[in-house]
Amino acid sequence: MTRTVYTTATTLDGFIATDDHDLGWLLSRRLDDDSPWSHDRFMAGVGAIVMGRSTFDWVERHRAASGDAWFYTQPSWVMTSRDLPVPEGADVRAAAGDVGDVHPALVEAAGGKDVWVVGGGGLAAAFAEAGLLDEVVVSIAPVAIGSGMPLLPGTVELELLDSGVNGEFLCARYGVVRSPA
Amino acid sequence: MTRTVYTTATTLDGFIATDDHDLGWLLSRRLDDDSPWSHDRFMAGVGAIVMGRSTFDWVERHRAASGDAWFYTQPSWVMTSRDLPVPEGADVRAAAGDVGDVHPALVEAAGGKDVWVVGGGGLAAAFAEAGLLDEVVVSIAPVAIGSGMPLLPGTVELELLDSGVNGEFLCARYGVVRSPA
Repeated sequence: MTRTVYTTATTLDGFIATDDHDLGWLLSRRLDDDSPWSHDRFMAGVGAIVMGRSTFDWVERHRAASGDAWFYTQPSWVMTSRDLPVPEGADVRAAAGDVGDVHPALVEAAGGKDVWVVGGGGLAAAFAEAGLLDEVVVSIAPVAIGSGMPLLPGTVELELLDSGVNGEFLCARYGVVRSPA
Repeated sequence: MTRTVYTTATTLDGFIATDDHDLGWLLSRRLDDDSPWSHDRFMAGVGAIVMGRSTFDWVERHRAASGDAWFYTQPSWVMTSRDLPVPEGADVRAAAGDVGDVHPALVEAAGGKDVWVVGGGGLAAAFAEAGLLDEVVVSIAPVAIGSGMPLLPGTVELELLDSGVNGEFLCARYGVVRSPA
């Protein structure tokens, strides 16, 4: 059964990046690759990917700087109304409009695995608002940064399903509690 | 050895209250009184208390509405430059100026127990900025609220010391990593 899951790292004070999109607070930290909370293990269960345009642009800037190929083998959607420069060899397409319009294609492409909502927070909040988000999984870095890009800019009721530690991070999996219709 | 500890509840997205100081998101949740993370257990180790003026005013509004006596038996300081209406029978005093000026009195009053920095976040950040904060202990409510009063409006490097679950809350204790002088 495909779940739509927003998985992200965050600071303790709820920011997924600094105001200028820096991730130094994140990338400097120790992670355990063998943890049940490892990114590799999560990615093995992901069948399709969706991200916002700012997230895509960030990923692309860093990919271009490093000379790496596109990271993901899963079919990926980028929510954008602007022209999208698709990286060579990448299974990436643009989608415009509401998240509800693209969600059926994401679920179909996932083939029984999960849909990963990469971010940003606004995109995750849009999925939650549309009643299409099943889980939120956070790896909380041990730092407060005071301001930045918000984790989840909306009101989202959650339920703690599981928690643990991965290296320097506190990790938690939440179910999204849907309002009664 | 007295530690100066900022202990608070927070939403997953890093707010300790809504913009209009409401705590409905917090007070509606299940807690386990027997948890090692329970507030009663924490309070048993507290020897002195310090809070900001907004926090004091919030506590007082709710106390007055409920008709309860002042909650705390520990000597308490309120950081304020304005006239302070001390509740009857309460061991409460006003302190103005820098947190560094009042900290020695807090530590002395604590008598070997801990100093509790109640909040708000700005006061906790001031203690951290002054190099006087030892720990941050959070009980994370399973909800995002999108905006509100910030948990810790500054840059504070932390180290995860312990974590656990109390009722619906994910709890964590962090040591504050001081910058090399």
